[in-house]
Amino acid sequence: MSAVYGGVEGGGTHSKAVLVSAEGHILAETDGPCTNHWLVGVDNCINGINDMVQRAKIKAGLDPDTPVCSLGMSLSGGEQKAAIQKLIDDMRERYPKLSQSYFITTDAIGAMATASDYGGIVVISGTGSNCKLVNPDGTQVGCGGWGHMMGDEGSAYWISHLAIKTVFDARDNLVTSPHDITYVKKAMEEYFQVSDLMGMLPDLYRNFQKSHFAGFCRKLAEGGSAGDALCQHVFTEAGKALARHIVAVLPKVHQDLFSGELGLPVLCVGSVWRSWELMKSGFTQVLSEAQAHGYSHFHKYSLLTLHQSSALGGAKMGAQNAGASLPLDYSANVNVFFSHTFNQ
Amino acid sequence: MSAVYGGVEGGGTHSKAVLVSAEGHILAETDGPCTNHWLVGVDNCINGINDMVQRAKIKAGLDPDTPVCSLGMSLSGGEQKAAIQKLIDDMRERYPKLSQSYFITTDAIGAMATASDYGGIVVISGTGSNCKLVNPDGTQVGCGGWGHMMGDEGSAYWISHLAIKTVFDARDNLVTSPHDITYVKKAMEEYFQVSDLMGMLPDLYRNFQKSHFAGFCRKLAEGGSAGDALCQHVFTEAGKALARHIVAVLPKVHQDLFSGELGLPVLCVGSVWRSWELMKSGFTQVLSEAQAHGYSHFHKYSLLTLHQSSALGGAKMGAQNAGASLPLDYSANVNVFFSHTFNQ
Repeated sequence: MSAVYGGVEGGGTHSKAVLVSAEGHILAETDGPCTNHWLVGVDNCINGINDMVQRAKIKAGLDPDTPVCSLGMSLSGGEQKAAIQKLIDDMRERYPKLSQSYFITTDAIGAMATASDYGGIVVISGTGSNCKLVNPDGTQVGCGGWGHMMGDEGSAYWISHLAIKTVFDARDNLVTSPHDITYVKKAMEEYFQVSDLMGMLPDLYRNFQKSHFAGFCRKLAEGGSAGDALCQHVFTEAGKALARHIVAVLPKVHQDLFSGELGLPVLCVGSVWRSWELMKSGFTQVLSEAQAHGYSHFHKYSLLTLHQSSALGGAKMGAQNAGASLPLDYSANVNVFFSHTFNQ
Repeated sequence: MSAVYGGVEGGGTHSKAVLVSAEGHILAETDGPCTNHWLVGVDNCINGINDMVQRAKIKAGLDPDTPVCSLGMSLSGGEQKAAIQKLIDDMRERYPKLSQSYFITTDAIGAMATASDYGGIVVISGTGSNCKLVNPDGTQVGCGGWGHMMGDEGSAYWISHLAIKTVFDARDNLVTSPHDITYVKKAMEEYFQVSDLMGMLPDLYRNFQKSHFAGFCRKLAEGGSAGDALCQHVFTEAGKALARHIVAVLPKVHQDLFSGELGLPVLCVGSVWRSWELMKSGFTQVLSEAQAHGYSHFHKYSLLTLHQSSALGGAKMGAQNAGASLPLDYSANVNVFFSHTFNQ
């Protein structure tokens, strides 16, 4: 068959695979479950990836026993060198018909590669969160991405946790809730099917599933849209937290990234950004404060969202690593959903 | 054999078992590993308990095939009714020679039963943390005790986490550390045997062991005693956090508990209290502020520590539950290590 390049987007709840022709056309796409190896283990991760790509080959009418030229994976949890080398070694050994070559990058870098070859800031907020600045010269500066035990600020996990912790602390009289907890407590009891706080312990320990826990965020988004003040509060806090990640990397942003038509481009990836309207006040407040305190050249920023899965950027990087160049039409992949120009 | 009563103290890192005669004399004591069923699972929990008690029988010269009259267990994680009933059912089925009857209470209530039959406030800070008010009429009000995913403020886990998170946030430029991180970063790299922050991920996820993570707190205590400002800071914050648990239950404290010679008795349980000198300023500050804001009858408090394992209180409650009364000399079990009288 003619050259086919594979790409994978691996999230903390869902994953996607894509096959791309040498001309940059999408031949097939498939879906799968969480492939974050920190969350599901190495075996589940590589089985899930193999399964998605093999199904995509069949869907595209290709022979599943013929390896693709390259497989570029944009994985949440794809950062630690030793761990990703082990993933690649295990895939090579166990699935020799999957691909001729392998490349793994983080979900943030894969998303950026889908949107632009010029750089910008990626802010991921899905099950977990992460932020990465990519400068025009290719240098990268990260903030966050350490997972729920050491960060994930502003993610669906974090929003769910903040809301639930507010209920626990109110019950304990440890911290007074800023708003009535009635809606959140009831939504929590329904979502986790518990009758009291003690009933939450299995969901927090023995049966803990990050993606299920983070899924409660959807109920909070519904509550926020319906006007519940505590739900709105936790999303405002998430907006602040995500903006703080941008502020953290601002000192390292190359001057050229500020000066385009869009101002500083911020690529927003992950399902939590669907609740942008709930996060907007907290997000814009933190960026405006940072701008006012010493970033006079930071005159404008724009928030972009992807039309395509970052599996596409993964495929591009995987091909590049194998010596091929996939032409991508970046302008068709992104959309500006918010712009703000600061008062000078 | 004459009547023998068993008691267990189950912690997040270590456990203890004790056998007591009908006269209240200790016949044997044994040690074991973590028996918190949320952390190690039901099987490891009940195996560990059976092993400790059977070894104690042999140590006391008793027949290990003869059940003790009762086994009273004071367990960290011993709160949720359904979970503790399952523990008891499994023990009965798997170890019919262990004991004739079973009783499980929390580590906090077991500690209080070791110290007094009049009540007071127990504040546990070991691997995890918990606070329980026991009024003279036996009524209880709790704060905390939800484990590391939803609380544990002021515990060894929490102190370790706060210090490590400060290093991560400083590296990310997300939050500026209040003090130099050099000592804590180096101690972390040594304790966890990692060369960078990325290396911490296995310790946080795949190989996470709460007791090992919490054990880093000892290195922080050493740093604090040697004068490191960030180590001292995290312990000051722990002191504040533990005091806030007391403030949370203050509105429910029965008047009589304020009026004894010691003022409000606070029983301090767990290894973190060994670092009292490092926590003192934060702890006393929070209680003084609370007292100044509306608790004029709260004129004095005393901090007490146990000489005996709370396995002894567990044994007493287990015996009581089986219809027997163990005489304990409370005055020999406790020691006042700090008292404070507020300026009126």
